[in-house]
Amino acid sequence: MPRVAFEEMRNVLTRALLKLGFEPARAQLCARLFAETSRDGVGSHGINRFSRFVEQIKKGVVDIHASPERVLRAGALERWDGRRGPGNLNAHACMERAIALCRENGIGCVALANTNHWMRGGTYGWQAVDAGVIGICWTNTMANLPPWGARKARIGNNPLVIAVPRAEGPVVLDMAMSQFSIGALQSYRMRGEELPVDGGFDADGKLTRDPAAIEASRRLLPMGYWKGSGLAVVLDLLAAILSGGAATCDIPADPIAETRISQVFLAIDLTSVDAAGVANEVSSRIVASLRGDGDKETVRYPGERVLQARRENLQLGIRVDAEVWERVLAMA
Amino acid sequence: MPRVAFEEMRNVLTRALLKLGFEPARAQLCARLFAETSRDGVGSHGINRFSRFVEQIKKGVVDIHASPERVLRAGALERWDGRRGPGNLNAHACMERAIALCRENGIGCVALANTNHWMRGGTYGWQAVDAGVIGICWTNTMANLPPWGARKARIGNNPLVIAVPRAEGPVVLDMAMSQFSIGALQSYRMRGEELPVDGGFDADGKLTRDPAAIEASRRLLPMGYWKGSGLAVVLDLLAAILSGGAATCDIPADPIAETRISQVFLAIDLTSVDAAGVANEVSSRIVASLRGDGDKETVRYPGERVLQARRENLQLGIRVDAEVWERVLAMA
Repeated sequence: MPRVAFEEMRNVLTRALLKLGFEPARAQLCARLFAETSRDGVGSHGINRFSRFVEQIKKGVVDIHASPERVLRAGALERWDGRRGPGNLNAHACMERAIALCRENGIGCVALANTNHWMRGGTYGWQAVDAGVIGICWTNTMANLPPWGARKARIGNNPLVIAVPRAEGPVVLDMAMSQFSIGALQSYRMRGEELPVDGGFDADGKLTRDPAAIEASRRLLPMGYWKGSGLAVVLDLLAAILSGGAATCDIPADPIAETRISQVFLAIDLTSVDAAGVANEVSSRIVASLRGDGDKETVRYPGERVLQARRENLQLGIRVDAEVWERVLAMA
Repeated sequence: MPRVAFEEMRNVLTRALLKLGFEPARAQLCARLFAETSRDGVGSHGINRFSRFVEQIKKGVVDIHASPERVLRAGALERWDGRRGPGNLNAHACMERAIALCRENGIGCVALANTNHWMRGGTYGWQAVDAGVIGICWTNTMANLPPWGARKARIGNNPLVIAVPRAEGPVVLDMAMSQFSIGALQSYRMRGEELPVDGGFDADGKLTRDPAAIEASRRLLPMGYWKGSGLAVVLDLLAAILSGGAATCDIPADPIAETRISQVFLAIDLTSVDAAGVANEVSSRIVASLRGDGDKETVRYPGERVLQARRENLQLGIRVDAEVWERVLAMA
């Protein structure tokens, strides 16, 4: 796979977005968020997803000129309408607004209706920690996961992000409610490998580690079985109720038609409770406590791999599938 | 197992607490929370845990006269010191305060340091929905779970509660970060059954469904493997940082000595964003969408079983282990 410098990727994506008609500042931000996602080692939600994003624009699912609008303010809680704008720009604007709210109120919460796929959820967690605040956000999605006890997909994999600032490396959890993503199943199958743990059900309804069997049945496993299933349900409830927007059961179950997504962005101002500046030391103590001395354990804290990938990709360039890169270059 | 009427259980527990020196109003509330937990079908965190609670009082771990005190206010975010008071009274007071904060600010957050085991986490979710607001809370615990990739327990099972009001039955998720609790392993073993899914590692480090092997190795599985492990870490981080209190690595790893627990209570005022009163309809639509018509699926929404148990136990009396009940009667 070729390696592409971060700046080059960002510039090419910016040009492609300008050609699509994005206003310059929005093209730049949108391109940066895509490129940063690939830089952080999450190509599946970065440049690899760009073509799908463009297809959604061309089909009129995503309105490139729409910005989110506030429709309701209740103290530290606000409701915004995403007006079907680009999902990453909408999410970025709403986390920015939650950060502003938490500086005023200690905590701030923005619920966003009527938006599109936010690409990598972790992006908005990193946005919060880069601003020195705690960030928590989640999204609902189209139905792509059977609830525990059901055979058909009726809940979303509803990614949840929790990000805590730390000088030596923020802790950023970014996890969907399925044990594996569709993309991960595909990768294991193409490498001819079994999953390391059960990832779904086969055609006979038995738990299996065979990625192809799960791709065929479309019965992915919620992480933690009934637990991830329950968590997906309540995240959807909160997103739909707080934003006044659509729930998973209202969202078209097709990756291109998927729209009217609901999201929640929470930010907490650490300085409001940490005048003494001890939070950083506490975080580092917790991170250090995860690893035992003496044994050969390989314990990672959430977000650790992202920083490793970021360092490597900034130094050596970002690995891109040659075909994906050609396609993006052709748009620029 | 004998069945005991809810009112009788509550009265007996109140008398036992009065004998221990509790002030009358606090004895009544504490007894009610224990009895309600058993009434809701969660005996393990209700009357079955009462003896351990009394032991913690007698050993001076729990100070029955201490009430939580506010140490910091930053808008809609507050920090309280639990002063090692009874865990359920402290948690109840802090959720009550978060509810008051959300009525003023749309959202309210109380972080509580220096408290004791809150017994059933779901209690404070039900408290929120009974007040008509959304409730989210979590606690850290002593280390009782190995992080993913480690052999020794270094993270807590850190229960998380998310509760959403709904007229026909609130949705209340109450889940620890381990796939099974120690109590559940015990029950399966005593019934001579295997776990329905992997619950931990055996002595050789292999994933197993054998409850006895997991009890022996003390290597319980985080729900969703690396995912529950990561979620446990960030919940601990948030609780310790926001409350300014202890993290899992600071808490004595012994069920009797376990104290200085940190917790977070979030409440969101639904009426502030739901003037039209449509939230209830949305919630019911989401709950209904989980079940397919035509197939024999048995899908439950989070909290559904609690209401079933509550109805049965209020009608027929609460099932109590005869020995447990004798022991409590002897204290009253």
